[in-house]
Amino acid sequence: MGSASFSSAADMQSTLLAGEPNGPSIKTAIPGPKAKAVADNLGEVFDTRALNMLADYRKSHGNYIVDPDGNTLLDVYAQIASIPVGYNNPALLAAAKSDDMMQALINRPALGNFPSVEWASILRTGILKAAPPGLNQVFTALAGSDANETAYKAAFMWRRQKERGGPSVEFTEAEMDTCMTNAGPGAPNLSILSFKSAFHGRLFGSLSTTRSKPIHKLDIPAFDWPRATFPELKYPLEEHAEENAKAEADSLAEVEDLILNFHAPPAAVVVEPIQSEGGDNHASPAFFRGLREITRKHGVLLIVDEVQTGVGATGKFWAHEHWDLPFPPDMVTFSKKAQTAGYYFSDPELRPNKPYRQFNTWMGDPARAIIARAIIEYIEKNDLVAQTARVGDYMFGKFEALAAKYPGQFANLRGKGQGTFIAFDNPKRDEFLLKAKTFGVNIGGSGANAVRLRPMLIFQEKHADILVEALENVVKAL
Amino acid sequence: MGSASFSSAADMQSTLLAGEPNGPSIKTAIPGPKAKAVADNLGEVFDTRALNMLADYRKSHGNYIVDPDGNTLLDVYAQIASIPVGYNNPALLAAAKSDDMMQALINRPALGNFPSVEWASILRTGILKAAPPGLNQVFTALAGSDANETAYKAAFMWRRQKERGGPSVEFTEAEMDTCMTNAGPGAPNLSILSFKSAFHGRLFGSLSTTRSKPIHKLDIPAFDWPRATFPELKYPLEEHAEENAKAEADSLAEVEDLILNFHAPPAAVVVEPIQSEGGDNHASPAFFRGLREITRKHGVLLIVDEVQTGVGATGKFWAHEHWDLPFPPDMVTFSKKAQTAGYYFSDPELRPNKPYRQFNTWMGDPARAIIARAIIEYIEKNDLVAQTARVGDYMFGKFEALAAKYPGQFANLRGKGQGTFIAFDNPKRDEFLLKAKTFGVNIGGSGANAVRLRPMLIFQEKHADILVEALENVVKAL
Repeated sequence: MGSASFSSAADMQSTLLAGEPNGPSIKTAIPGPKAKAVADNLGEVFDTRALNMLADYRKSHGNYIVDPDGNTLLDVYAQIASIPVGYNNPALLAAAKSDDMMQALINRPALGNFPSVEWASILRTGILKAAPPGLNQVFTALAGSDANETAYKAAFMWRRQKERGGPSVEFTEAEMDTCMTNAGPGAPNLSILSFKSAFHGRLFGSLSTTRSKPIHKLDIPAFDWPRATFPELKYPLEEHAEENAKAEADSLAEVEDLILNFHAPPAAVVVEPIQSEGGDNHASPAFFRGLREITRKHGVLLIVDEVQTGVGATGKFWAHEHWDLPFPPDMVTFSKKAQTAGYYFSDPELRPNKPYRQFNTWMGDPARAIIARAIIEYIEKNDLVAQTARVGDYMFGKFEALAAKYPGQFANLRGKGQGTFIAFDNPKRDEFLLKAKTFGVNIGGSGANAVRLRPMLIFQEKHADILVEALENVVKAL
Repeated sequence: MGSASFSSAADMQSTLLAGEPNGPSIKTAIPGPKAKAVADNLGEVFDTRALNMLADYRKSHGNYIVDPDGNTLLDVYAQIASIPVGYNNPALLAAAKSDDMMQALINRPALGNFPSVEWASILRTGILKAAPPGLNQVFTALAGSDANETAYKAAFMWRRQKERGGPSVEFTEAEMDTCMTNAGPGAPNLSILSFKSAFHGRLFGSLSTTRSKPIHKLDIPAFDWPRATFPELKYPLEEHAEENAKAEADSLAEVEDLILNFHAPPAAVVVEPIQSEGGDNHASPAFFRGLREITRKHGVLLIVDEVQTGVGATGKFWAHEHWDLPFPPDMVTFSKKAQTAGYYFSDPELRPNKPYRQFNTWMGDPARAIIARAIIEYIEKNDLVAQTARVGDYMFGKFEALAAKYPGQFANLRGKGQGTFIAFDNPKRDEFLLKAKTFGVNIGGSGANAVRLRPMLIFQEKHADILVEALENVVKAL
């Protein structure tokens, strides 16, 4: 994504933010009486035990979420990091009202069989305009889990095709027979290598690579796939350079060992640029360059899971653009702030050698692809990637000051130079999150102790000031 | 779904159908020059090797699909059986333009954490209004694959909870440790039992239960889960009553044997009312009642996959309503013509005992749930389930006549009394499907030799006449 010119476009964001409240306003306990009544009604037919907060989206605006009792909160959780450009953004509303959208909603195509005449243009002017450097193809999906799983499928087919001797070599009878009983060689003994604390989704293949928490994995059968240690960096980074470098080297050595020796050879390594659900665990660009080199060396694909890190929040459109890779990842998966999903790639051999091998009825949703196009255009026009870099630097400085003032309360502060993708650990994390609501902030956690900041891309310095003041009050009140 | 009153509502369908062309009209080869140009452009960025036909949806109407070269075809494939009430249906357009839709599109919630104040009402007046008899809860999803996989997850958690001694029994340390390495007991050695020729989706868990064709499964690692024989009925049914009954009894015996003896015990049996992708394979209501009894007897859940059969085409809203079950299935999954997805259930123990066990960021899409609501309302107001029963009977008679006139060309005609869910085998099936386009019919195949009819619910006797005439011409031309 190149930088975009300002001009009248910058006014788009100003107009949106001008409609925001001046700050949070808390009128009742959360949930208040109205929220409770709505939740009770919903709970009769829909599992509400993970309910965080009921929302009245018609009244929410920009960076602020409003609940049925009229409580107004600065939202730096943003639907688990999935709202890119604010509630009730007029540019998205225009896309929602468009004739293209009406068509997408009422005439939903089976995109692999019967694509519309508009589909190429929707992709080229939207999802593909934001493609990571070096990647120019997309397979569209519906959410992060199936984006990752279809990428894994592409990796397995690619690997077996290579072993078989290329795309023109036919399947054997034995392969065709055994795959029908889920046995080898047709259903091969291959794997996807992932990292400790990783999160890649919750369907059966993606969950087999997710290593975040037991509650995500308990009681679900899983593939016997390898797990490497993700480097556990110590903070502040500048004080632990040597041991952090060793942790990363050890991790890379472990990856290489698993590639060479694990009993189900990995077809791909999947990695998040910043382990998000796992607790905002970072590694250095050098680590990721090493990972790229090792995978390339051994003919293993590198899948970068940008479901949470992608689409601008880290100060780059794609977080892996921070790494200065010598050649691009083989596949990059996306969802969340794209409001749609899929994986990017460029190697023609990642298109399976026959039709119907990578296929499903809908293969995505044009309605959500049209929203993605409007998001990408809005980000460009308002130069929001540069904004997250700028605001993130500003906010990181503020948190460094808080960390110094309240030792242990903003521990392991991380995300410097990573836009607004900032996190810290707090010893009473769950209480911290609840208390934040009473000070007008909706904020999320991840991993065991992390508080993670996931503001939208329209989050500015003035919002950072409100946030930092509120979190200081939280710590004082804990 | 109770029957609905006619009145002015019936005019809705009449108005829609009045806008249809009088019949198909073929102007060029398919693909014609314009379609080829569009496909070439799309093919640069998106895999088009499964392309069946480019479509111009703005010009398509009701039962007719139009391509960029102006070819107009009667569409009895309907986006792989996923278009319920016709192209450019005004009732769906009204839903697409609604304020509820605008909110759903531009403020997409994480439904498990931050549901909207409207969500309960969207469910109650839509998806849940169409719930199968005896089921009153729903877990929403995005497509058939994740609907099935989340149902499987619910089954595994239910099973382990029962083995553990109930919802209040805590997980052991060993379970929590081992699940993180994808090993037992935390990742249990349990399975989902499916049938030969079944199709339940193409992600890793659902694909492990799919047994349709090698091309769907080759090179993808799969779980070692059991597969039972689906009865292979012989047609006409009345001439093979005894051997068909034996085939069904044998199949049930095999299911019971696998439940008792397979090395990875099944937590659930998943079955389609009519195996659709597998070739339109039917079984009798008695077979399904037997399956319900066996599963209940052994504490195994029964999941009925109504992704393709659901939402009216079989002359019942849900195909399993034909079975006269003594008690409902434990879960019923849906997608396709619902234009959204999920699974219905009623047992409170199928809600896992803790939050975040069955969870993901979006947990469905309210935009598609609003379309589902409009579809369900339209079906009710226009009494379309009764219509598919009536039109299906009419059309089946016509095909019986064709089958008698052209021996072997409409072989194993099946779907009597199953609405418009009719299929037959043809020895030159692939050629038949291509040739049908030249006579103005877009029609699909399944299994090895089947031609499957999947008209929309607004398909009437006049359309059946056009279809039957065209298919007779196809056979004459083969």
